[in-house]
Amino acid sequence: MARFQTFDDPADGAHSAARIAKLRDELVRRGLDGFVVPRADEHQSEYVPANAERLPWLTGFTGSAGTAIVLADKAALVVDGRYTLQAGEQVDTAVVEVVPLADKTAEAWIGENLAAGATLAYDPWLHTADGLKKLEKAVAQAGAALAAVEMNLVDVIWLERPPPPKAPVRPHPAELAGETSEAKLARIREQLAKAKVDALVVSDPHNLAWTFNIRGGDVAHTPLPLGYAVIPADGRPTVFLDPAKVTNEAGAALGAVADIARQETLPAALEALGSAKARVRIDAESGAVALVRRIESAGGMADVGPDPISLMKAVKNAAEIAGTRAAHRRDGAAVTRFLAWLAREAPSGKLTEIEAVEKLEALRDETGLLRELAFSTISGSGPNGAIVHYRVTNRTNRALKPGELFLLDSGAQYEDGTIDVTRTVAVGEPTAEMRDRFTRVLKGHIAIARAVFPKGTSGAQIDALARQALWQAGLDFDHGTGHGVGSYLSVHEGPQRLSKLGTQPLEPGMILSNEPGYYKTGQYGIRIENLVLVERREIAGAEREMMGFETLTFAPIDRALVEATLLTADEREWLDAYHARVREMLTSELDEATRAWLVEATRALAPTSPEGRG
Amino acid sequence: MARFQTFDDPADGAHSAARIAKLRDELVRRGLDGFVVPRADEHQSEYVPANAERLPWLTGFTGSAGTAIVLADKAALVVDGRYTLQAGEQVDTAVVEVVPLADKTAEAWIGENLAAGATLAYDPWLHTADGLKKLEKAVAQAGAALAAVEMNLVDVIWLERPPPPKAPVRPHPAELAGETSEAKLARIREQLAKAKVDALVVSDPHNLAWTFNIRGGDVAHTPLPLGYAVIPADGRPTVFLDPAKVTNEAGAALGAVADIARQETLPAALEALGSAKARVRIDAESGAVALVRRIESAGGMADVGPDPISLMKAVKNAAEIAGTRAAHRRDGAAVTRFLAWLAREAPSGKLTEIEAVEKLEALRDETGLLRELAFSTISGSGPNGAIVHYRVTNRTNRALKPGELFLLDSGAQYEDGTIDVTRTVAVGEPTAEMRDRFTRVLKGHIAIARAVFPKGTSGAQIDALARQALWQAGLDFDHGTGHGVGSYLSVHEGPQRLSKLGTQPLEPGMILSNEPGYYKTGQYGIRIENLVLVERREIAGAEREMMGFETLTFAPIDRALVEATLLTADEREWLDAYHARVREMLTSELDEATRAWLVEATRALAPTSPEGRG
Repeated sequence: MARFQTFDDPADGAHSAARIAKLRDELVRRGLDGFVVPRADEHQSEYVPANAERLPWLTGFTGSAGTAIVLADKAALVVDGRYTLQAGEQVDTAVVEVVPLADKTAEAWIGENLAAGATLAYDPWLHTADGLKKLEKAVAQAGAALAAVEMNLVDVIWLERPPPPKAPVRPHPAELAGETSEAKLARIREQLAKAKVDALVVSDPHNLAWTFNIRGGDVAHTPLPLGYAVIPADGRPTVFLDPAKVTNEAGAALGAVADIARQETLPAALEALGSAKARVRIDAESGAVALVRRIESAGGMADVGPDPISLMKAVKNAAEIAGTRAAHRRDGAAVTRFLAWLAREAPSGKLTEIEAVEKLEALRDETGLLRELAFSTISGSGPNGAIVHYRVTNRTNRALKPGELFLLDSGAQYEDGTIDVTRTVAVGEPTAEMRDRFTRVLKGHIAIARAVFPKGTSGAQIDALARQALWQAGLDFDHGTGHGVGSYLSVHEGPQRLSKLGTQPLEPGMILSNEPGYYKTGQYGIRIENLVLVERREIAGAEREMMGFETLTFAPIDRALVEATLLTADEREWLDAYHARVREMLTSELDEATRAWLVEATRALAPTSPEGRG
Repeated sequence: MARFQTFDDPADGAHSAARIAKLRDELVRRGLDGFVVPRADEHQSEYVPANAERLPWLTGFTGSAGTAIVLADKAALVVDGRYTLQAGEQVDTAVVEVVPLADKTAEAWIGENLAAGATLAYDPWLHTADGLKKLEKAVAQAGAALAAVEMNLVDVIWLERPPPPKAPVRPHPAELAGETSEAKLARIREQLAKAKVDALVVSDPHNLAWTFNIRGGDVAHTPLPLGYAVIPADGRPTVFLDPAKVTNEAGAALGAVADIARQETLPAALEALGSAKARVRIDAESGAVALVRRIESAGGMADVGPDPISLMKAVKNAAEIAGTRAAHRRDGAAVTRFLAWLAREAPSGKLTEIEAVEKLEALRDETGLLRELAFSTISGSGPNGAIVHYRVTNRTNRALKPGELFLLDSGAQYEDGTIDVTRTVAVGEPTAEMRDRFTRVLKGHIAIARAVFPKGTSGAQIDALARQALWQAGLDFDHGTGHGVGSYLSVHEGPQRLSKLGTQPLEPGMILSNEPGYYKTGQYGIRIENLVLVERREIAGAEREMMGFETLTFAPIDRALVEATLLTADEREWLDAYHARVREMLTSELDEATRAWLVEATRALAPTSPEGRG
């Protein structure tokens, strides 16, 4: 039994016809012509609390991204390529048309389907200022109008809607945080002065958690306390959190640096800032347009831009780095025990994807320190491995069969660090094509791991290094090479990323994933993922300040899938050195059987293999 | 004697105190408090006509980029890193403060120095809409106001200001253009329909020349006819050109597809569009805010965005590609004759940078087809080679000395193609460091030349390939890896580029430069530049549409500077194959002595050199 993951087949859209009909009654009652239902909560979070699951309640669609638009006579659900198939299966397509994002954005659908003179309603707490601008443009082109509603129209008809989450808010230990909240606030105030703003609204719960050294549990997989803070450039901040959630310990710690107020009083606080003609920074990423409106309607100036905390939080301090190193060693031992078990069990051809998930969670749980999975484990055998965001359910579950590949992408939350690791292993004998593809992915992984680059370089500039070996064979993968990772916070953290969209310069102390892949639809998927830490790099004779990556993850990479003749001497050296380091870090943590397996799994590549080509 | 390049030391700022005083009199007379003088003409051109040289006339500064701001009691000239030194030498710093752009933008200087309540004047023909927005923000922050002037205030006091250029406008031959103006206009109209605009104002003279298959000579180095066109989504375009410039042949060709009108009638035409409530695309890059104003004040909608012609022009057709291949073969022979001559003459230690420029121009001129240099040749020996935008003058001219490197970056305009090529050669014996640096630059050059990438890839994604070998040694270069190149048009053409700012996806038919470098201040500079053509690439088993580069430039790369042990087997193969191709393409074009030299200069690297490392 898994504690942190279910294998239920997601709810279907059986109720959606009735619910959408009710929503339409509400529209008529209010003289409105349509309503937008984004998959979003008030903080634009990746994981939303149950009471914000309006999109699945209304449509049956459970994916992590999508927007429904309900008009009087038609309704659409716009989803990206990951979810086109799933949405088609989950929603009642007689009532809701599934629109692939590649064909049409939600705004384009609105532009084409909203009648001139109509009024489209939206909930200003679920849209950012930038998001609303796009909506405004689409509605204007249709010759229609937008109207903000006071209460979300889905909430009006959702009688059994769950209450807001009330998970306890606890202090994050000083020895793990590595910097006091006072010191963080002093640095934040410097940033506010530099940006010439009078106050910052912290709307991103990750930033709230980091600033005040607290953690909560209001959503799955990430220890977030849902709430807000207002940090003035001068003076004491106010944290807006349900007092019932705040433990005594957290209350005492928080009270030392901030006032605590009920979340319901946030609008009044924003109006007070507005009346004082304050210039207030609203986070462009997470800040609802409702925040902007409250400040502006009271006469203030809402400055929509980056929350400076995001970048500060991305750069880990020594304590956070020490924590993540310890967490990775602990987790690497669990993953290695899992891989040894898998090597024994998989050849039977009977082991299932779900059993693999359960076993890995159990081994992590045996550390006694597992707080949560950082996300639902992606456990994909054969063709399921080719589905990039696959989540195994009782319906899709299948056995690992000889001759197939098995892809396992899993994460863990320990109090000292957040983990994300992917290994792809051969069950039985892999084909020459599988080995070729795996080795090209590995060459990309190594190119990132070994990259050296000057200060100021962004992830966008080096993303292609992970793709070159695939490109040479006419292949590629359709996701970024890596994302930022938090410190006992989100496994997907910005602004750092390795992707063509990653314009943030990398800085020493940032943690990112290094996870190139290759996916052959209907056959197999390959991904090799380690977390890496950006570090300064000393080079003799260097004229620039240089940086590189330290690999944090320790778990063997399946040698049976490595075609050594495709590797250069430097690449072979890297793999052998990595495996030696895996042994060095993990041996003392392992039982004897696993240790013996690890020695074999990490032995150096044959030194006599012919010279490869870069 | 060079026909197309002078070696004069640029004018100094001796007159600037008097001229700025006169400008201040004008400000007082008009009740204004300041005036902005950008280095720009009405088309935001790289090369501006003599009558638009307001910045050098006023300040003495002759660089290609910079902005002066003259207030009642102070004046500043903001210049980028290339020009800080030069500006300090050229301007009268008692009158004009030189401000490095890295310290302060022109807008920041204005924000700090313009008094609240003051009025800053500007010429709306010399600023784009985006540029003006920045200016507006700065002035608003200072609590001051902006005012557009009807006539440029420098022109008011510049009594001996030259008349506008009147170079003849001639047809560009159909066999070189490869597409009729009718066909181009049909494609442009499709783009206008797609963008939902009623008309396009062509403000970029390069786009004017391309669309109507004409060429002119109003500025140095680029065969531009300065003028405008208005292309309606439906109906006949109007070309706004001084009729005195239009030759009979060009007039006949133009008249077949467009009306010709005097440039003075452009504002009235814009007002007519405005009165008709038209939505008019204004090019964000080249379009003056004055164009926007005329349309909007008459009631139209100015849609500031990309001129679709820029991207169409960037993708060369078969005739243009055949033309550039012929031009490159012809020019490669001239460059190779030059390099053979240099190899004979340079060891004397007496040959000067200017003599090298003159010789190369003479050899190009001997082809009988040279129309212009594409830019002033950069001829830098020893420390002068480390100045990226060096232009040799009688004052800076120095002899090529044994033990030094010599960097020569030159361009040519032939009617069938525009050339840009850089070679770096060792005079006498190079040091081990020079060879190491040169080889790292060469590795970067080869990485671009050999790159294979999927459709949709931008220059930003592959720029780092050119830097990796330098990064590994803690080195880098501070310019992009490559820029787009036109077809008997600008040697710097957008939107394609190889740089971290190059977000335009590359497309087959685009021409770019591939020019990584390395610069050691006070000692030497290295750059290796070939032009490359983006082409489709067939790969067995490819799952994506792939692209790569065909190298267009043919001239030997100095083998004396190649440290073969630093090259991988693939890199050595590339260099040998490139040199074999240079011989194959040029042998029939060369005299016997040059041919013998070329055989030696392009012989394969020793096959026994030890295996290098990628």
